[in-house]
Amino acid sequence: MLDTLVQLFDWLGVAVFAATGGLAAARKQMDIVGFALLATATGVGGGTLRDIALGQLPVFWVGQPVYLAICIGVAVLIFAAAAALQSRLRTLLWLDAMGLALFAVTGAKAALDAGAGGLVAIVMGVVTATFGGIIRDLLGGDVPVILSREIYVSAALLGAAVFVAGSSGGLPTAAALVAGFLAGFTVRAAALAWGWSLPRYRPDRA
Amino acid sequence: MLDTLVQLFDWLGVAVFAATGGLAAARKQMDIVGFALLATATGVGGGTLRDIALGQLPVFWVGQPVYLAICIGVAVLIFAAAAALQSRLRTLLWLDAMGLALFAVTGAKAALDAGAGGLVAIVMGVVTATFGGIIRDLLGGDVPVILSREIYVSAALLGAAVFVAGSSGGLPTAAALVAGFLAGFTVRAAALAWGWSLPRYRPDRA
Amino acid sequence: MLDTLVQLFDWLGVAVFAATGGLAAARKQMDIVGFALLATATGVGGGTLRDIALGQLPVFWVGQPVYLAICIGVAVLIFAAAAALQSRLRTLLWLDAMGLALFAVTGAKAALDAGAGGLVAIVMGVVTATFGGIIRDLLGGDVPVILSREIYVSAALLGAAVFVAGSSGGLPTAAALVAGFLAGFTVRAAALAWGWSLPRYRPDRA
Repeated sequence: MLDTLVQLFDWLGVAVFAATGGLAAARKQMDIVGFALLATATGVGGGTLRDIALGQLPVFWVGQPVYLAICIGVAVLIFAAAAALQSRLRTLLWLDAMGLALFAVTGAKAALDAGAGGLVAIVMGVVTATFGGIIRDLLGGDVPVILSREIYVSAALLGAAVFVAGSSGGLPTAAALVAGFLAGFTVRAAALAWGWSLPRYRPDRA
Repeated sequence: MLDTLVQLFDWLGVAVFAATGGLAAARKQMDIVGFALLATATGVGGGTLRDIALGQLPVFWVGQPVYLAICIGVAVLIFAAAAALQSRLRTLLWLDAMGLALFAVTGAKAALDAGAGGLVAIVMGVVTATFGGIIRDLLGGDVPVILSREIYVSAALLGAAVFVAGSSGGLPTAAALVAGFLAGFTVRAAALAWGWSLPRYRPDRA
Repeated sequence: MLDTLVQLFDWLGVAVFAATGGLAAARKQMDIVGFALLATATGVGGGTLRDIALGQLPVFWVGQPVYLAICIGVAVLIFAAAAALQSRLRTLLWLDAMGLALFAVTGAKAALDAGAGGLVAIVMGVVTATFGGIIRDLLGGDVPVILSREIYVSAALLGAAVFVAGSSGGLPTAAALVAGFLAGFTVRAAALAWGWSLPRYRPDRA
């Protein structure tokens, strides 16, 4: 059952990030192949960097091309359906929030499974959660979402940290996964809904 | 003879992409070391990402530094000769088209040789063909060429798909390589010459 | 003693690059997690790419999380102290110069240790020295420092080349490390202080 949950989180994370790539392509008025490219790069980008850094090669989608199929399928759906959305940017940000929280915990779990320690696992969760969006924004010529004023990277950090703490502290892994996801998603959702942010660096503060 | 053809395609692809890096450096009025950096990053960038994702490490140019020598030699040539060109951007785009078609088939072949399936091989062809140019444009502070309105990624996709289909369908590998190259190059060349493009996403379409 | 020197160069390089990431975050008025992200990506980015290309996986900071701790600690320090600096950009550039020269020699040494030849080792020195700064500038939405008019990549190249030449030519490794560092740092410092630059490509030269 744990395996099923991890698998579900992983597929869902890839699918929602792929959808944000498709929405970015819609905003740039790209063609269908551009949709597929941005969707795939966003969907599998973070996990690819995680696998490479951990030395888990070839990367996950080489042996399991179903991940590529998910990304391409989502790209086709978004190409067909994006016109019906009221706000593509708003939808993109909410899907991104869900992917961020899902990948924060699955990325951290993959690192623990590969034998990494707690700090490295948290960093891998953050890398997996944020890198797909960074690639999407760089390829699309947008300002990286990690520069947004509202809490973003911190939500991934919190989600990964809750998972690692829970998992090391004796929680069943499935419960730690869900707790980490909820922590990360809630904070990012609050940031989107109410503009939550951490204190920012001010050059002229006392 | 097949090995010779693959080797030729590979060297030629590296050389023409290196030349596009040099031309981008000329447009930015960089110094000779900047030419060498952009030429090398563009020439070996796509194949480096492909090798990493496939787990073929160390990457190809660590064991075969001749690829680095080609890139540096091309950079020196472009530094000396670029002033004679009528249009550096136009030359860049045509060389890029040739490199795109060459790497689409050699990238896909490298993935098949490493045991990947057809879909993964096509994706690797696209990655190898497009990533060098993406690096070139990001390092040079230009808008990524993959955002161009004319067919670009699609040409790489077609070239890789024709090669994989031909190769799986029983064509001799050399014939599949040439067919894939011609398909990819012809489509990209037509896009450059006559502005061919695929239907783009329109937010207000019915 | 050699091991101590290499370790010292490596830690110092990571720390000063992390500091430049923190200073970039200060210029962008990011929050503390943004400081930590930019500091870590800048501090370990170049060495991560080097390890990946050489196939030394998992990358160095997975097994030695002290590197992550250094980056995060430096980020916290910069968050607290940056307001006291007269010119954050100037400080960033001088620390970047030191990191550039340190990583040029440690990156080249890591490649030689992994069995690479001289040309590849020099390229790895340049990659390790420049890539952290490239990541920092891309993530921060700045123009890549490698495009600066003053000598930059060339200083890394010189430092790496001096180390490789000295090391192959029979110098004790520690002496070659120091010589390479001094060569790279002196040239970059002169470029910063007096605007040294190499002749740039001019489209209209005779």
